[in-house]
Amino acid sequence: MFRNQYDTDVTTWSPAGRLFQVEYAMEAVKQGSAAIGLRSMTHVVLACVNKANSELSSHQKKIFKVDDHIGVAIAGLTADGRVLSKYMRSECINYSFTYDSPLPVGRLVVQLADKAQVCTQRSWKRPYGVGLLAAGLDESGAHLYYNCPSGNYFEYQAFAIGSRSQAAKTYLERRFETFVNASREDLIKDALIAIRETLQGERLKSSICTVAVVGGGEPFHILDPETIQHLIDAFEIVGDEDPPANEQGAAAAADAEEGATAEQGATAGEGGDGAADEGAAPMDI
Amino acid sequence: MFRNQYDTDVTTWSPAGRLFQVEYAMEAVKQGSAAIGLRSMTHVVLACVNKANSELSSHQKKIFKVDDHIGVAIAGLTADGRVLSKYMRSECINYSFTYDSPLPVGRLVVQLADKAQVCTQRSWKRPYGVGLLAAGLDESGAHLYYNCPSGNYFEYQAFAIGSRSQAAKTYLERRFETFVNASREDLIKDALIAIRETLQGERLKSSICTVAVVGGGEPFHILDPETIQHLIDAFEIVGDEDPPANEQGAAAAADAEEGATAEQGATAGEGGDGAADEGAAPMDI
Amino acid sequence: MFRNQYDTDVTTWSPAGRLFQVEYAMEAVKQGSAAIGLRSMTHVVLACVNKANSELSSHQKKIFKVDDHIGVAIAGLTADGRVLSKYMRSECINYSFTYDSPLPVGRLVVQLADKAQVCTQRSWKRPYGVGLLAAGLDESGAHLYYNCPSGNYFEYQAFAIGSRSQAAKTYLERRFETFVNASREDLIKDALIAIRETLQGERLKSSICTVAVVGGGEPFHILDPETIQHLIDAFEIVGDEDPPANEQGAAAAADAEEGATAEQGATAGEGGDGAADEGAAPMDI
Amino acid sequence: MFRNQYDTDVTTWSPAGRLFQVEYAMEAVKQGSAAIGLRSMTHVVLACVNKANSELSSHQKKIFKVDDHIGVAIAGLTADGRVLSKYMRSECINYSFTYDSPLPVGRLVVQLADKAQVCTQRSWKRPYGVGLLAAGLDESGAHLYYNCPSGNYFEYQAFAIGSRSQAAKTYLERRFETFVNASREDLIKDALIAIRETLQGERLKSSICTVAVVGGGEPFHILDPETIQHLIDAFEIVGDEDPPANEQGAAAAADAEEGATAEQGATAGEGGDGAADEGAAPMDI
Amino acid sequence: MFRNQYDTDVTTWSPAGRLFQVEYAMEAVKQGSAAIGLRSMTHVVLACVNKANSELSSHQKKIFKVDDHIGVAIAGLTADGRVLSKYMRSECINYSFTYDSPLPVGRLVVQLADKAQVCTQRSWKRPYGVGLLAAGLDESGAHLYYNCPSGNYFEYQAFAIGSRSQAAKTYLERRFETFVNASREDLIKDALIAIRETLQGERLKSSICTVAVVGGGEPFHILDPETIQHLIDAFEIVGDEDPPANEQGAAAAADAEEGATAEQGATAGEGGDGAADEGAAPMDI
Amino acid sequence: MFRNQYDTDVTTWSPAGRLFQVEYAMEAVKQGSAAIGLRSMTHVVLACVNKANSELSSHQKKIFKVDDHIGVAIAGLTADGRVLSKYMRSECINYSFTYDSPLPVGRLVVQLADKAQVCTQRSWKRPYGVGLLAAGLDESGAHLYYNCPSGNYFEYQAFAIGSRSQAAKTYLERRFETFVNASREDLIKDALIAIRETLQGERLKSSICTVAVVGGGEPFHILDPETIQHLIDAFEIVGDEDPPANEQGAAAAADAEEGATAEQGATAGEGGDGAADEGAAPMDI
Amino acid sequence: MFRNQYDTDVTTWSPAGRLFQVEYAMEAVKQGSAAIGLRSMTHVVLACVNKANSELSSHQKKIFKVDDHIGVAIAGLTADGRVLSKYMRSECINYSFTYDSPLPVGRLVVQLADKAQVCTQRSWKRPYGVGLLAAGLDESGAHLYYNCPSGNYFEYQAFAIGSRSQAAKTYLERRFETFVNASREDLIKDALIAIRETLQGERLKSSICTVAVVGGGEPFHILDPETIQHLIDAFEIVGDEDPPANEQGAAAAADAEEGATAEQGATAGEGGDGAADEGAAPMDI
Repeated sequence: MFRNQYDTDVTTWSPAGRLFQVEYAMEAVKQGSAAIGLRSMTHVVLACVNKANSELSSHQKKIFKVDDHIGVAIAGLTADGRVLSKYMRSECINYSFTYDSPLPVGRLVVQLADKAQVCTQRSWKRPYGVGLLAAGLDESGAHLYYNCPSGNYFEYQAFAIGSRSQAAKTYLERRFETFVNASREDLIKDALIAIRETLQGERLKSSICTVAVVGGGEPFHILDPETIQHLIDAFEIVGDEDPPANEQGAAAAADAEEGATAEQGATAGEGGDGAADEGAAPMDI
Repeated sequence: MFRNQYDTDVTTWSPAGRLFQVEYAMEAVKQGSAAIGLRSMTHVVLACVNKANSELSSHQKKIFKVDDHIGVAIAGLTADGRVLSKYMRSECINYSFTYDSPLPVGRLVVQLADKAQVCTQRSWKRPYGVGLLAAGLDESGAHLYYNCPSGNYFEYQAFAIGSRSQAAKTYLERRFETFVNASREDLIKDALIAIRETLQGERLKSSICTVAVVGGGEPFHILDPETIQHLIDAFEIVGDEDPPANEQGAAAAADAEEGATAEQGATAGEGGDGAADEGAAPMDI
Repeated sequence: MFRNQYDTDVTTWSPAGRLFQVEYAMEAVKQGSAAIGLRSMTHVVLACVNKANSELSSHQKKIFKVDDHIGVAIAGLTADGRVLSKYMRSECINYSFTYDSPLPVGRLVVQLADKAQVCTQRSWKRPYGVGLLAAGLDESGAHLYYNCPSGNYFEYQAFAIGSRSQAAKTYLERRFETFVNASREDLIKDALIAIRETLQGERLKSSICTVAVVGGGEPFHILDPETIQHLIDAFEIVGDEDPPANEQGAAAAADAEEGATAEQGATAGEGGDGAADEGAAPMDI
Repeated sequence: MFRNQYDTDVTTWSPAGRLFQVEYAMEAVKQGSAAIGLRSMTHVVLACVNKANSELSSHQKKIFKVDDHIGVAIAGLTADGRVLSKYMRSECINYSFTYDSPLPVGRLVVQLADKAQVCTQRSWKRPYGVGLLAAGLDESGAHLYYNCPSGNYFEYQAFAIGSRSQAAKTYLERRFETFVNASREDLIKDALIAIRETLQGERLKSSICTVAVVGGGEPFHILDPETIQHLIDAFEIVGDEDPPANEQGAAAAADAEEGATAEQGATAGEGGDGAADEGAAPMDI
Repeated sequence: MFRNQYDTDVTTWSPAGRLFQVEYAMEAVKQGSAAIGLRSMTHVVLACVNKANSELSSHQKKIFKVDDHIGVAIAGLTADGRVLSKYMRSECINYSFTYDSPLPVGRLVVQLADKAQVCTQRSWKRPYGVGLLAAGLDESGAHLYYNCPSGNYFEYQAFAIGSRSQAAKTYLERRFETFVNASREDLIKDALIAIRETLQGERLKSSICTVAVVGGGEPFHILDPETIQHLIDAFEIVGDEDPPANEQGAAAAADAEEGATAEQGATAGEGGDGAADEGAAPMDI
Repeated sequence: MFRNQYDTDVTTWSPAGRLFQVEYAMEAVKQGSAAIGLRSMTHVVLACVNKANSELSSHQKKIFKVDDHIGVAIAGLTADGRVLSKYMRSECINYSFTYDSPLPVGRLVVQLADKAQVCTQRSWKRPYGVGLLAAGLDESGAHLYYNCPSGNYFEYQAFAIGSRSQAAKTYLERRFETFVNASREDLIKDALIAIRETLQGERLKSSICTVAVVGGGEPFHILDPETIQHLIDAFEIVGDEDPPANEQGAAAAADAEEGATAEQGATAGEGGDGAADEGAAPMDI
Repeated sequence: MFRNQYDTDVTTWSPAGRLFQVEYAMEAVKQGSAAIGLRSMTHVVLACVNKANSELSSHQKKIFKVDDHIGVAIAGLTADGRVLSKYMRSECINYSFTYDSPLPVGRLVVQLADKAQVCTQRSWKRPYGVGLLAAGLDESGAHLYYNCPSGNYFEYQAFAIGSRSQAAKTYLERRFETFVNASREDLIKDALIAIRETLQGERLKSSICTVAVVGGGEPFHILDPETIQHLIDAFEIVGDEDPPANEQGAAAAADAEEGATAEQGATAGEGGDGAADEGAAPMDI
């Protein structure tokens, strides 16, 4: 446990050139409920698992509309995510007010990443504890970005973040070559199947997932549950294209490893987790 | 006890991606006296247990009117709660002055959550130690929100926070499907029963609880004790709809677990609790 | 002694959701000499024990006039109390200058509480170490409030703070139902008896207590010692209404417990107390 | 030695509600050379022991004129005392410039105390390490105040501060009832005898003490050494009114206790004291 | 392990006159994927290894255009690198706007170095964790600079940074005398071979490297993958000029040593590396 | 070694009421090369030992002219001394510009002391590490002051500071009664002999000391070496007035004690001292 | 190892009156490559060893022109040195713009020293880690100064700083009396020989040293390598004036001692040095 003297301050480098506090903030993303994104040439689809705090509440919103042409799905600290999507919204408004055209997606994503980088270089702040999948459409086409607490961003064809996202990634990797030319409906279907991969045997229902789409002539919007349930029913009947067992196993193994690592890290986590299970609204990630 | 190096500073992430100081602030909510909220399509009812510091004082106020259409019930640090409800009040005044219409409930709740989030990302501050149930009515209908020290907020059909709130939640979960279309009087009755669930055998009297209502044509106001006693007498006579024993038992078990966790957490709490029992006004939560 | 890592910084939450530094500041109130307050519908009386630092000095002033209609009695750090009563005075002047009417008591008390709350949420400050009993008269009648280092305030019919205040509280609880309609003279008499309860056998004399009154047509003022001695002589002759022995015993037991707790807390307090006994002016609380 | 975690920061409360850093600053007053003050209805006399750093220097000035009607004697850190008396001087000038009348003594003393209180509530400052005896004359008569590092102040008939001041206080307590109506000369004589009490057998000479007077028609000024020697010779010849042996003994015992406490506190003080004895100008207190 | 007390704060010197935090930030450069630069009199070529986070994303961009005449390749924290290249871009724009001519390369490099130096002398910041190879052309010819986290910069004929860069440096040192007069094509070919040296046996393909050129009449631009593959195919057929085995071995040995050092430093690095291998986007360096 | 928790921060009081950081800064004065000052009614003479860092450099300047009527000799951190004498110079210029008369010496000395006091009461600063002997002439005559890192100042007839100054002080104490009426030449001669006392057997030469004079009609200036050597030769021939052996011994003993104390304090000083002896310019004190 | 509690903060004094952080910064100068300076009445020559980071880069620039009449050679952190020489350059420009004459050398050196002193008295900064030899010519003749991290400066006839500078100093001390009247060529020759002394047996070539001159009618400029090689060849042929063996030995011994001290201090330095030897650009000092 010699790690300690370098890992409590975001402005302290470890001897090996790492910023542990930034890496720990990235762990917060892994603790959040899963979110996935995928895109064709004309559409981007975001989907996430609805985390039900309680029967008494509607699920926690994890997908936010930023502008007509942009939306985000988050995993990690919801409060951080909300503050950042608010920032994105105001950047979009300012831009369109000034230039009378929508803010290009890539440009917004860089601004967001710069805002996150600042929090990794001031001793009195902390890195944001949230990952964002930004889906958008602009003159250069459909885009899917992942913004990370470290201040990095990545462009993806398809990606999954949050807890148990490894299984979804495995599915997406097997299929992603078909996405570029996929139809809007196929994209949504693949999104739903990828979400199902993160459920650990739980049955996929429209009530436990949210799906949003942005595309040509179709502003960013969240699909209504009936539409989703319809789609689910359709492919559940025809039989889902199960990944071969061995791949499944590999994904599961990866997951297990992930779980083990997380547990190992969360040395004193039991008390807190126990609290989270109590029913009172936990610190939502 | 390896937890220590990551849990004294709100800007320090733990290796598992948690902010312990935010979670500890959420514990303060659990230590406060219970507050519950529930809503129909037209009305929202807030209720709380009156904590009597002493025979010599009136009970500590835990429900605050924010505007004609909004009110809050708090659990946790009263001083923090008072400061936040003051903030809400001034936001409402500013909005109605500028737009000549009442501030939508959801919008106020987001502003409050953003204010709380800031306190989770500055090393020289601390998270607020209070949870707020915000009840309000606006053009989009009746709303009940829970604002948490983490900067999150949740919309609920019904919710309970504070000490021994688990029993109330169990009751509300059993009944909540009836709330949407419930009459104003039924809502109040359910609020009273839920409060009774948190009392651990103590007899429900109007003197130990406060109830407030906001609804169509009825600005947010606190009911007078006579009205409440009247309602209590009514249903106490007809016989209360006791939850079946096994559910009760489950709730109690959950409570016991909760108690155990709290005790475990409060390592050195005895001295302080002893002080609280002395009769002098304790740090009120 | 696992308490230590959470109890040196006012912005650090303990795992159980407590702010130890705020609680410790509240201990300072308990170390101060006793102050009591009680009110009828028309009058409020404040009284305190005069702490004689030395024969050479007059006693330390513990009751301050704030305005014609408001006064405070303090227990704890006198310097903090003085600074706060100065703040109250200037708020009263500003208000009456602006609105040409006296500042309502409850409003002043909230402002004071907000000022105290700020000191519980900044890492470079400390909570005030003083409790204030605020007595006042305004359009809504006579009021008695207790303002606490935590930023809370409470309205009381009667209250006692400071060292050995438990005995006084026990007396007040036994009698408080008679206060609402009590005459000015009876209130003062009860105040004196309550003060006597805190004296541990020492004989009550006008020189060791201060009494102040505010009421209808009677601005806040401190009674002169002759008047007080007169009253004392009167009821000392008729025989004081001793609380029954068993109550006394209970109060004593409570006191003993209080003492034990304080001693337990004051781990290394002996050296300091010894210094206080030396005759040089100690840090006055 | 569990004291440590609460006693290095002025904004940290101990579990027993004490601010150790403020108490330690008060120790600095006790380490300074003795200063005494006493007043009649018309005059105030300040006196102090001249601390001779070396034959080569005149003694360190410990009595400062603030204005024609006010002066101070200090014990503790001379630099802090000088800075504070400079502040007092400028307050007096500003007041008389604005109001064309001398600043009342009590008002100045409160301003000084408020300035000291601020230093007890900011983490980046330290309490002043000096005690001030303020002597003044205004419309309300002659006044003697003691201002303490804690931000408190006290009005005295007579008082003594600094090292070995206990013996002087014992003398003053025995005599103080005669001071109110004492003549100017008797006051000075009593001041000299009180000073002599602090000398531990050393013979009183005009060279080792300073005496200042303020009174009706007599602005604050320091008496010249000849006058003082004259007075000393007078009462030394008539025989000094020695306190009875047993009182002396009590005072000595008190002193011894004081010494023991100080020594106990000054765990690692020897090295430093040795340095002070070396002849180089020590940190003057 | 006596290193610890001097190596957590960038403003703390070690007894031997070193700033460990700056050195640790330089380690971050070594952890990044390799980047190389080389120049003739007329051209500068930058090349880097494309780090594939996942099949699902395009590779992370490591070469940035700054202006028509300047570009940079980075190794280390991508977010820091992006922020710094943004700064460079705005400096170039400001300069050309003011002076109507391109900003000289050396001047930009000094400004960048000064910006980095500031972060090594403020306790609330941290040194940048990125190394930049700046390639540019101005009136004084073609330039290649290396900017280091320490605030230093160096002019090079050819240089390689990042992980396994030692092998590339060994190759460049053997060949650099030919670079001054090399043709554009030869420079590119040498860049590709140097990149191949860092691959540890992996086959060089256009998909795993990026190459950019700036030269006379040729603004800074990134070559398209086809062109690169073409060049690779060409020299792979003619047989690559393998360094003699013993040199290879030496390079490998140097690498091994480097690896050992890094591992030694990264005391507790396994958990984190494991996380990096999981497939989720790691903290990209 | 319980000293530690109170002696690393200038704003932390020790339990015995001491500010160790201020005392440590005063140690820096003792480590500096010796400086002495003495005055008659009309003249003040400053003298210091020239510390030769190396044959290659002229000696370090330790005596600075401030204005025509004021000069200072320093012992301790030269850089701090230079900054302070610069401050004094600018104060003199401002004063004479505003009032068209020279700044009185005592007034300047107080301003300097106030500047030093501030550095003893801010947590982000440190006390100056230099002592200053200020020599000046104004309407009130010739003055010699010593300004100390603590913010104190003292007026002296004659004084010596710096390393081995005890022997000089012993000499000065034996002779100081003659100084008031001494001639300019006798003052200088006594200054030289006092300097010789600090040399530990080394032969006094004009090259190892600097002497400055200010007096009636003679602005502050440094004497040229020839004049000094002349004076030295004169009294070396007539035979120096050696202090009797036993006094010498006492001084030596005092010195030894001083040395022992310093050594004791300088726990880990050997490495550093060794470095100082190496010939490279050490941290000059 | 009791040194630790006083040596991590530049504003903390050690008990013996030392500022360890300033001394550690001075160690950084000793770690830099050697620089030497020497002057006659009309010329000043600076010379330094070229530190070759790699065959691939030109050597690191260690001599900077500040103005036509001033230049500096640095040893230590190059980035700090560059920032400081930039400051010097802008001071020279401002002065000549305002006064239309060149800034006197001594004045610039004091400003530089004051800038360095500030960094030794602020807790959020660090002392500069660089020593500067400033060579200049102004109306008062030729000057050579050494500016140290402590904020001190020294005027020298000749001086050497940096690693293995002891041998050069020994040579310079033997010869310096001849420098005052030396010709420009002799000065350069002595500079070269002094540089050779620091090389530890390596052969002196123009490629491993830089020499600069400023003198009457000759603005500060760096000599071109051919000229230098010419001079080297000349005196290498006539036979160098080797210092007698015993002096050499003494110098070597001094060096060895220096080395030992440094090693002792650099407790955990091996890892870092190993890194420096790897070939990647190290933190250049």
